[in-house]
Amino acid sequence: MNKRIYLLITATFAIALICLSGLTSPTPVHATDDPLPSWNDGRVKQAITEFVSRVTTANSPDFLLREDRIATFDNDGTLWVEKPVIQGMFVLDRLKKMAAADPSLKQKQPYKAVLEEDVAYFKQAGEAAVMELLAATHANMTQEQFEQEVRTFFKTGVHPTLKVSYTRVTYKPMVELLEYLRANGFQTWICSGGGIDFMRVVSQQLYGIPPQQVIGSNGKAEFIQKDGKFAIWRLPEVGRINDKVGKPVGINLHIGKRPVFAAGNERSGGDIAMLTYSQGRPGASFQLLINHDDAQREFAYQEPDNASLNAAKVNGWNVVSIQKDWKTVFFQ
Amino acid sequence: MNKRIYLLITATFAIALICLSGLTSPTPVHATDDPLPSWNDGRVKQAITEFVSRVTTANSPDFLLREDRIATFDNDGTLWVEKPVIQGMFVLDRLKKMAAADPSLKQKQPYKAVLEEDVAYFKQAGEAAVMELLAATHANMTQEQFEQEVRTFFKTGVHPTLKVSYTRVTYKPMVELLEYLRANGFQTWICSGGGIDFMRVVSQQLYGIPPQQVIGSNGKAEFIQKDGKFAIWRLPEVGRINDKVGKPVGINLHIGKRPVFAAGNERSGGDIAMLTYSQGRPGASFQLLINHDDAQREFAYQEPDNASLNAAKVNGWNVVSIQKDWKTVFFQ
Repeated sequence: MNKRIYLLITATFAIALICLSGLTSPTPVHATDDPLPSWNDGRVKQAITEFVSRVTTANSPDFLLREDRIATFDNDGTLWVEKPVIQGMFVLDRLKKMAAADPSLKQKQPYKAVLEEDVAYFKQAGEAAVMELLAATHANMTQEQFEQEVRTFFKTGVHPTLKVSYTRVTYKPMVELLEYLRANGFQTWICSGGGIDFMRVVSQQLYGIPPQQVIGSNGKAEFIQKDGKFAIWRLPEVGRINDKVGKPVGINLHIGKRPVFAAGNERSGGDIAMLTYSQGRPGASFQLLINHDDAQREFAYQEPDNASLNAAKVNGWNVVSIQKDWKTVFFQ
Repeated sequence: MNKRIYLLITATFAIALICLSGLTSPTPVHATDDPLPSWNDGRVKQAITEFVSRVTTANSPDFLLREDRIATFDNDGTLWVEKPVIQGMFVLDRLKKMAAADPSLKQKQPYKAVLEEDVAYFKQAGEAAVMELLAATHANMTQEQFEQEVRTFFKTGVHPTLKVSYTRVTYKPMVELLEYLRANGFQTWICSGGGIDFMRVVSQQLYGIPPQQVIGSNGKAEFIQKDGKFAIWRLPEVGRINDKVGKPVGINLHIGKRPVFAAGNERSGGDIAMLTYSQGRPGASFQLLINHDDAQREFAYQEPDNASLNAAKVNGWNVVSIQKDWKTVFFQ
C-alpha cells in the first residue's frame, strides 16, 4: 500500500475512533447491557424500563421534552437506609463532641436526655427540646462552618449495625435507577424531609445529584458580616418543613413544575403527597413506593396504618418489594 | 487507487466528519466569531472574556470545574427593563380586568387607588394595602391558574413607552452574555426580587433559563384538594422576600453555593449583597453592575445615595455603562 494512503487511513481511523468514543458517552452507560443489573426481572423493573422507553421515544404519544423529564426522590428509606435516621446520628455525634468539650452539658437538659437516650424526656418536653437540639447542632454558625461539620461526620461516622461508613448505606438499585434516568435525559432531584444543607454535602458524591437539585427542610438564615467577612448565618428557627404535604410545596418552590417520576417509601406516609402531586400532572407519569420487607438484608418495618401501601393500591403506584425486586441491596 | 482502499478512506472520512460535527457542538456557539456582538469593545467586554477564558482553561490556576460555574443574574434592570416594573404592570392589568368584571371595585380601596394611580393613598395606607393587592392578584388560586394568568398577560401586554410586547424588552447584550456563559459550561440562574412564579413562566423563552433556575420572592402555599384534584394553592401570605440581603439567602437556599459570576444593576442597592456574597467565595469570581445612563436608547436613573456604584468602586466590580458598552440595547 502506498505510504501516504496508509498514513491517511491510519489518521482518519484514529480520528474516527476518538470521535466515536466521544459520541458514545452521552448515550446510556449500559446501552447494550442491562441498565438495572441490581434489579430482579419482574413487574416493577419492567414497568420502569417500559415507562422510560415510552416517554423518550420520539413519535410516542407520551413523548416528553427533556425539560419536562423531572424525577424526584425521597432520601431516607428511598435512597439510603433510615434505620436509624442518619441526620439524627449526626445530631448525636455533635452533641457527644460538645459534651466532651464542655462536660457540664451532660447534666443539662435536653442534652442529658439525648446522651442518655432518654426517649421519655422528649415525649414530655416536646418540640421546644427538639428545637434546642437543632439550634445547638445546626444553627448559630456560618453556612461554611456547618458544611465542614457535616463533612467531618461523613468522614468518620459508622453505621451502628451495618458497621460501614454512612457513605456506604445507599441502595445500589436506586443509584442505578438515578443513573438510568439521567442517561435518558431526566433531571434527578432529591425531595426529602431531611435537612437540605445536610444532604447537599454528599449528594453529588453518593448519587451524582448536585446541591442545587436537593430539596429539603431548611432553617432560616441571614446574610451578615462576621469576623470581617460576609457570610450566611444559620438562625435557630425553622424555615420550612419538607415532609408530607410540604413536599409538593417544596417541589413547586424549587423546580416550579410537577415531577414526571416520583419515588418514595412507606414508613410514615411522608411521600404520599409527593406521589399524588406527580400523578396529578397532565400526561404520563410514574410513581414508585419502596416497601421495607427485608429484615435479612436491610430492615423490615411497616406503617401502623398502612397508609402508603393503601394509597399505592388505590392509585396504581409501583410498589418495590426489597426482598423480591432487588438482587443486591448495598454496594459491596 | 485500489477500490477497497478508496471505499475504506471514504467511509472512514465520513465517520470522522460526522463525529467532528458532533464534537463541535459543545464548544462555544460563536467559537470563531465575536461571542458578544452587541457589546462595544472596551474594558468591560474584555474583562468578561478574559475572566471566562481564565476559569475555563485547563491548567489555569483559576480553572473551575463545571459544577462550580454558577452565574446569577438579577432580572429587573439587569436582564429586562424595569421602567415600569413589569410585574407591577401585571398587577394593574389584573385589577383592571377584575374591575371590568365587578365595577364596584372601582369605588373600593385599595383597588380604587391603583386604578386612579393615587400614589398618596399607598404612602398613607402602607404595607397592608399592598398585601391586599398582591393577595387579590397573586393568591387564592391554584398554581396552574396563576401561571395561566401570567401567560395571558405576556401574550397581550404592551410596554407603555417602548410600545412592544413585554417579551421584547430584554437586553440583547445580556441575553448574549447568558448564552456565552452557558456555551462555556456555566449554569445561568436568575436571582431577582420579582416573584419567582411570575418570572418562571417566561424565563425559558426569554433567556433560555429553565424554571428550576429561577430564584425570586415567593408567597406561602399549601397542597390541597380542590374541586376533586390535588393542587398547589397560593396563600395570601408572604413567604420570603428575595431582595438585598435576601438574595444571598435565596441563593444559598436554591443553589447551595456562592456564585462565581454575579450581575445586577444600580437603582435601589438591591444587588449589593449578592455581588458581595459572590466576591466572598474563595478563588476567582466576577461581579457586574449595570449603570442605567442611556436616556436616549433606554432609561437614565441613579440611586439617591449612589450606594451600588460606590460599592462597585470600593470592591472593584465591573460597571457597565449602557451608553458606552452596549452597541445595541434591544432585539429588533
